[in-house]
Amino acid sequence: MSYRFPLKDAVRHIDWRGDRLRVLDQRLLPRRLRYVDCRSAQDVADATRAMVLRGAPLIGCAAAYGMALAARRGEDLSRAAKTLLAARPTAVNLANAVQYMLEAAKRANGDRPMAMAAAAQRYFETDLRANQTMARLGASLLKRGSRVITHCNAGALATSGLGTAVGMIRYAHYLGKVSHAYPCETRPYLQGSRLTLWELMRGRVPATLITDNMAAHLMKTGRIDAVIVGSDRIAANADVCNKIGTYGLAILARHHGIPFYVVAPATTVDLDCARGDLIPIEERSAKEVVEIFGRPIAPKGARAHHFAFDVTPHDLVTAIVTERGIVRPVDGRHLKKVLG
Amino acid sequence: MSYRFPLKDAVRHIDWRGDRLRVLDQRLLPRRLRYVDCRSAQDVADATRAMVLRGAPLIGCAAAYGMALAARRGEDLSRAAKTLLAARPTAVNLANAVQYMLEAAKRANGDRPMAMAAAAQRYFETDLRANQTMARLGASLLKRGSRVITHCNAGALATSGLGTAVGMIRYAHYLGKVSHAYPCETRPYLQGSRLTLWELMRGRVPATLITDNMAAHLMKTGRIDAVIVGSDRIAANADVCNKIGTYGLAILARHHGIPFYVVAPATTVDLDCARGDLIPIEERSAKEVVEIFGRPIAPKGARAHHFAFDVTPHDLVTAIVTERGIVRPVDGRHLKKVLG
Repeated sequence: MSYRFPLKDAVRHIDWRGDRLRVLDQRLLPRRLRYVDCRSAQDVADATRAMVLRGAPLIGCAAAYGMALAARRGEDLSRAAKTLLAARPTAVNLANAVQYMLEAAKRANGDRPMAMAAAAQRYFETDLRANQTMARLGASLLKRGSRVITHCNAGALATSGLGTAVGMIRYAHYLGKVSHAYPCETRPYLQGSRLTLWELMRGRVPATLITDNMAAHLMKTGRIDAVIVGSDRIAANADVCNKIGTYGLAILARHHGIPFYVVAPATTVDLDCARGDLIPIEERSAKEVVEIFGRPIAPKGARAHHFAFDVTPHDLVTAIVTERGIVRPVDGRHLKKVLG
Repeated sequence: MSYRFPLKDAVRHIDWRGDRLRVLDQRLLPRRLRYVDCRSAQDVADATRAMVLRGAPLIGCAAAYGMALAARRGEDLSRAAKTLLAARPTAVNLANAVQYMLEAAKRANGDRPMAMAAAAQRYFETDLRANQTMARLGASLLKRGSRVITHCNAGALATSGLGTAVGMIRYAHYLGKVSHAYPCETRPYLQGSRLTLWELMRGRVPATLITDNMAAHLMKTGRIDAVIVGSDRIAANADVCNKIGTYGLAILARHHGIPFYVVAPATTVDLDCARGDLIPIEERSAKEVVEIFGRPIAPKGARAHHFAFDVTPHDLVTAIVTERGIVRPVDGRHLKKVLG
């Protein structure tokens, strides 16, 4: 990284051990640091589906290591690829990582397991460098002392390290450009309160938690200068799929004349997907809505929706920050120009 | 009520016993039905502050009975009034009820305690009749088979009975005009999942719970025909103060061209308050945001905002339904015309 930016607070949340991938169980944060060992592609897929690990870029990194584990065990790589791809439908980073590893397998001469492990490591390091570049580029968009809202967790925990939206916020805070961050708690999984606030507090960024439904009031009362979020998939027309609630925040930001920034690496862009409404939106179990920590918060037999993501049309997005440059204005043409 | 509308599912959530007011502890719903006896104005104020009972119209009814209890105990009525008024700052129904009871005290000849108890009962019954009228008027606004979002709990539990927004939804469902209701869970207190969904399920209204941040996605995907909410205070210019999250819903409804209805009795209107931004917004303990059922959901030492209400500018409201008529278009002139 070209700037001095100490991150002594980082937790080793994904750790390649040669014969296994050790991942932090993010479901238990911030109360407990428990690690889970994945010894096969199936283990990685299970951990991904169960949200032991989450965050589009991290899901990609873990899938790359999952493919390396499959190679190590001499498993059929196309079957391993299928297993991993079936874990979660929305984040395209997963598909991109698996594709990257299948191509690495084709190119491998000699020791294929070793070559695959090296490829997974390269994928991981590429993501880390991308985050560093996005943090630098993104910070340039902000005025001094900005007060920002973020949603879900697009932090170190969601990526190889540093993070996308939170990486930008942390670096901007380091430069004096962010004075306060407001993470939305992000129901139902509470990634904002459990993960993002935890990262911000460890990084000494002044932060105040809000419930998702407080964002509009904060904007109206002049407390917010920008909204900064990550993404799980960006379509070719620059529509942005991200954690449920993001689309609503974009509408609120537009209503109040507040810029709305998306920070995501090139691996999140899916040029094969023409528009946002073609992105599959994962529907998870209603149980994750009607229970909190296993305790019911709704009547017995309650029905609930659990859409895990939504799509923000590109015209509500002020800029998309990628490691290859800033997309602005946000449309398909400029997206392709920056990524081309 | 002029129409046959069975409400066999109603719970006795406020019960005047002559020497005490028995109220259902709404904090424990839907898991437990526990009742609390209030024997003085102080008891009623304490129960109000602690949210044993909540909902602007119900807070008004309870305060009326609290004044009757003060009269029964021979307490100083202006001191009792102060105690009650200090319980919660935002809902103007509280002030209106106390004022109503002070005037009843002035008029009382002979047995003042008996006159005050009768006045409180009249206040309660007036609210119930208002709810019935609003349900009828409100239902006239909806097309057959409407799918509606509601927020917080503006139901029987929030009022003398039947409810404001939920009363309208239930009656409209009875007429075939509501086919499905989506209560937002309403963080942090979860009135939507704990109370509104419970009322809707008991009343056999098809209902699916959503987290607050899912509303925009439902609107975008064509699943919502109207948003219907209650109010804690309506200013003279027709700005609407209601549970935090209401303002955001109004912006989302406007963005998607969906009507946004407010249902509230005349006791919720504060003509002495010129504009919405002059309404005091209660800020409650951060603890209610960072803990759920006493279990932490955020890191130790986390800061959080807990704005309990927000204000929706009148121009985002399609119509206000009162028992005296429908205010439409929504502005100060038409509000005064309907209430005058």
